[in-house]
Amino acid sequence: MGENIILPEILVTELKIIEVIGGNVFHCMKKTDNGFNEFGEAYFTNVKSNQIKAWKMHNKMTLNLTVPRGKVKFVFVSPDNLTKFHVIESGIDDYKRITVKPGVWFGFMGISDEESLILNIANIEHDSNEVFKKDVDDIKFNWKK
Amino acid sequence: MGENIILPEILVTELKIIEVIGGNVFHCMKKTDNGFNEFGEAYFTNVKSNQIKAWKMHNKMTLNLTVPRGKVKFVFVSPDNLTKFHVIESGIDDYKRITVKPGVWFGFMGISDEESLILNIANIEHDSNEVFKKDVDDIKFNWKK
Repeated sequence: MGENIILPEILVTELKIIEVIGGNVFHCMKKTDNGFNEFGEAYFTNVKSNQIKAWKMHNKMTLNLTVPRGKVKFVFVSPDNLTKFHVIESGIDDYKRITVKPGVWFGFMGISDEESLILNIANIEHDSNEVFKKDVDDIKFNWKK
Repeated sequence: MGENIILPEILVTELKIIEVIGGNVFHCMKKTDNGFNEFGEAYFTNVKSNQIKAWKMHNKMTLNLTVPRGKVKFVFVSPDNLTKFHVIESGIDDYKRITVKPGVWFGFMGISDEESLILNIANIEHDSNEVFKKDVDDIKFNWKK
């Protein structure tokens, strides 16, 4: 499967959708996959069409993000240059896993008509002490272009 | 959180939905949760409204099933009595995790108008040698009641 290192902190892996009669199987992550080190927690979040959730940065958690419903535009900020952005779209018609190592500010927007669902398979359990937030206007990005 | 042992092989755990402005967080599994032993693989499958997928049995895999979209009726067959059934409904309005140890025949049906999505967090990677199948009519169950 195709792998693409966007930044030293960001790995994008194309994922298989296995067509099965009566319903497909969408891989997310195997313990032997690149990007996997440890399992800490899995959780979902959702984002509505055109809704923006930004910005967040984890300083301990490695995230593994898949979008099993809808489509999401993820925007990652270069750790060494907060005016440089890396945009990755992910959804059921463009199915992939995005591995995000600690230290990267990111945000996302729902870009399908339907609500989108994001699964994060994280290497540690949720810990509010390692999550940092900024308001959407604190890092200037043109979300609508 | 509520836990309910349906059979020695089946544990049902009510899960938290954390309401966050602009989108909720749906827990699936933490490494410290009951039912978790090891992470092998995570994958999705989908099931349409009124579609039945049955029957399957894993003889090595422990499954951890959550339904982050739609609603699904799961039917588990007692390992010691193939005419005894345990029905568990799971969906976004009744959010829970179902842990299924090896050796249980089960099937499921989509019971929401929209397509449902099922996440399985399994303790081993997929291995077709440990999956056994029967046709839907091989185990008699009244799905439509």
